[in-house]
Amino acid sequence: MRAVIIGAGPAGMAAASRIRKHKPESEITVIERTKYVSFALCGIPYYVGGVVKSLDDLMYYPPNFFIEKRRINLELQAVAERINPREKMVIYRKGDEVKELSYDVLVVATGAKSKMLPIPGIDEDGVLTAHHLDDGEEIKKRLTKAKRVAVIGAGLNGLEFAENIARLGKEVHVFEYFEWPLPRSLDEDMGLILKDLLAKEVKFHFGTPVEEIRRSGSSLRIVSGDTSTEADLVLVFTGIAPSVDLLKDAGAKIGETGGVKVNSRMQTSLDSIYAAGDNAEVINRVTGKPDWMPFAQVANKMGLVAGANAAGKNVEFPGAVKTWTARIFGVEVAGTGLTEAEARKMGYNIRGEMIKGKNKAHYMPNPGDIWIKAVINEDGTILGVQAIGEGALARINVAAALLPYKPKSSDLIFTDVGYAPPLAPVWDPIIVVGRKADPIL
Amino acid sequence: MRAVIIGAGPAGMAAASRIRKHKPESEITVIERTKYVSFALCGIPYYVGGVVKSLDDLMYYPPNFFIEKRRINLELQAVAERINPREKMVIYRKGDEVKELSYDVLVVATGAKSKMLPIPGIDEDGVLTAHHLDDGEEIKKRLTKAKRVAVIGAGLNGLEFAENIARLGKEVHVFEYFEWPLPRSLDEDMGLILKDLLAKEVKFHFGTPVEEIRRSGSSLRIVSGDTSTEADLVLVFTGIAPSVDLLKDAGAKIGETGGVKVNSRMQTSLDSIYAAGDNAEVINRVTGKPDWMPFAQVANKMGLVAGANAAGKNVEFPGAVKTWTARIFGVEVAGTGLTEAEARKMGYNIRGEMIKGKNKAHYMPNPGDIWIKAVINEDGTILGVQAIGEGALARINVAAALLPYKPKSSDLIFTDVGYAPPLAPVWDPIIVVGRKADPIL
Repeated sequence: MRAVIIGAGPAGMAAASRIRKHKPESEITVIERTKYVSFALCGIPYYVGGVVKSLDDLMYYPPNFFIEKRRINLELQAVAERINPREKMVIYRKGDEVKELSYDVLVVATGAKSKMLPIPGIDEDGVLTAHHLDDGEEIKKRLTKAKRVAVIGAGLNGLEFAENIARLGKEVHVFEYFEWPLPRSLDEDMGLILKDLLAKEVKFHFGTPVEEIRRSGSSLRIVSGDTSTEADLVLVFTGIAPSVDLLKDAGAKIGETGGVKVNSRMQTSLDSIYAAGDNAEVINRVTGKPDWMPFAQVANKMGLVAGANAAGKNVEFPGAVKTWTARIFGVEVAGTGLTEAEARKMGYNIRGEMIKGKNKAHYMPNPGDIWIKAVINEDGTILGVQAIGEGALARINVAAALLPYKPKSSDLIFTDVGYAPPLAPVWDPIIVVGRKADPIL
Repeated sequence: MRAVIIGAGPAGMAAASRIRKHKPESEITVIERTKYVSFALCGIPYYVGGVVKSLDDLMYYPPNFFIEKRRINLELQAVAERINPREKMVIYRKGDEVKELSYDVLVVATGAKSKMLPIPGIDEDGVLTAHHLDDGEEIKKRLTKAKRVAVIGAGLNGLEFAENIARLGKEVHVFEYFEWPLPRSLDEDMGLILKDLLAKEVKFHFGTPVEEIRRSGSSLRIVSGDTSTEADLVLVFTGIAPSVDLLKDAGAKIGETGGVKVNSRMQTSLDSIYAAGDNAEVINRVTGKPDWMPFAQVANKMGLVAGANAAGKNVEFPGAVKTWTARIFGVEVAGTGLTEAEARKMGYNIRGEMIKGKNKAHYMPNPGDIWIKAVINEDGTILGVQAIGEGALARINVAAALLPYKPKSSDLIFTDVGYAPPLAPVWDPIIVVGRKADPIL
């Protein structure tokens, strides 16, 4: 069997490794644009901030591991240009050379790409984004000369970069269209709580749409209404989109989310072609509908399933619930399922319930605050949960485990989470929000 | 409606408060042996160790809160002596006075009592246990004169006391019959890992049955085989048992576990009498059978349900999965469901799978080790999980949430737990143990 994988990120390499495991005699080739494999894009801000010393550290395994231990051919710095599904052929370019590779099974794991803000000045020199390890290198290089950095977009990526760049002693400005951080992940009520907890050493400009980036000598000006802010470097994190062009051009079905349509075995609409990772759709186990979840862990799992199926096994990916988390300026924050805003937009008739609790027994030294919000459907089903504070992820993971089972508030209450004075209060915050939401208890 | 509650612990006070909420006009009286209400027994070791300054801090609310805000009569330092279920009457003693109280509904929340080791010398002065706040006071008093302390039993309580007493600079010896700590909570393979991580400043004597406690002048000798160890104070934590005498004498059915039989509404076999807390049985949601789970959070929930039902609501307690956790000498440890040893004893044909993982992305500074073991039935169902290391509870809580749904290893793999480099690796350890256990993935 001849397997070809396009994209050496987590999904691609998980698929490649899985095929090797189940089909020891197969020939496996991975085509990758960069010189990196099995890379952790989530680590880039920490590389920029000096927490991670080398970009090579962001690879789970180095290329040689795959070549030698797993007998996987790596075509690095090679760009897939076309898939010919009838001939079962991939056409790719490596340097000046155009090559062809035939496949019995093909796994396309081309990931996502940054969506740049369509405003004047976005193409100026000094305006960058980061969606690959090389971008991290470039930002780090430019930071040696930059004193003032503007970050556009206070989503997960924007905040992680802002934190890491502030750590280097730079003056950091963050511009966000909405009035609160993580506007796509947190509802306004939760977002305003996080806003209060953010670092004071970074200057946040909330409710500030960026209208133009204007060059002014050696620096750039971020213009919004009557005000403008000077910066030496501008980083744009205004969203990402699935990279689907290769499959789209080959005739694969693309879903309403913009991601490639796949079935539960990660098969695209084209014969013998699988898709996995940020380019593919995922079933949202809360709504039961296709969704797009560009998260590394989901990508890894899709790769695992695609690889197993490509190698002749029969494994189904049930989908995911959109769990996310981060620690930003020391504040832990996490969420799963639908936000109130998302749920309303989808037509659910819902209510939100929020509590403020502690993450330890009240009598232990320095218990930390934790805020939890549950989004509850009119039939009593929990559709999503958000949390802020030390221990947020531990509580969100409980909700994430329950969401596929359509939990009611009583299921939150009666989940038997662990209790010990240094680790949790006896009424754990995830139980307390369940009680707040419950019609009786 | 006249409601009487026996026992002012978490279960009793949760029931009392719930009755007040649903029946604003009812008359509610709580009979309690001590002077404390809504107390956290789990906090006693931390009081002994000086982490908690006052025993009053271990009450969630002081007596006056219940008297004034919730209009609950408190009969403190009063001992219930007999229940007359035909006359619906409780006979209790307060000082020299014997009193009677009639009830429409009765909630019995008498908790558990310590089981002392039946060995020579167990009644010597200076041999104590701790099962109530007053015991904490007594131990603290004696510690002012004791330099060497022996703790018998390396279960959760024994280790928490050993840690806290070591913190005071005392010489601490811990004696354990088994070869590893937490022998009823951890399987031997996991227990031996924890053993290696325990504090070196405490002298552990594993595999050391205590045969006698012998007085020797002003000190005591712990005798085991040919060896003996001197101590000024001996604390015994060799298990607890449900306090069921009152209900047993009244004719209530007692289960095989030794706890009071209750239905899912927490009703005993006697008319209008509910039981809640450590004296009552609980359905184990893994086995579906009655079990005994003397954990504060479970007790609280039972109290909530008993109170709601006593007040005319209809709430069912689905049971629990025996989740426990602790931080001992800085090591976080947790478990849920059945251990391998328990499962084998019950006749399950099982296997155990253990992994060692990290609690952060590999490229972040100082990721911590975490060990997770899953116990898997022959049909592939996960029956229990144990974990050791920073972040253990967060992973165990995920398993605890899943256990009622009879999860397979693939359910562990596909639970959408959160990932961010400072908080978890992309293949979270709870997913990795699922992969290890899975026949395909």
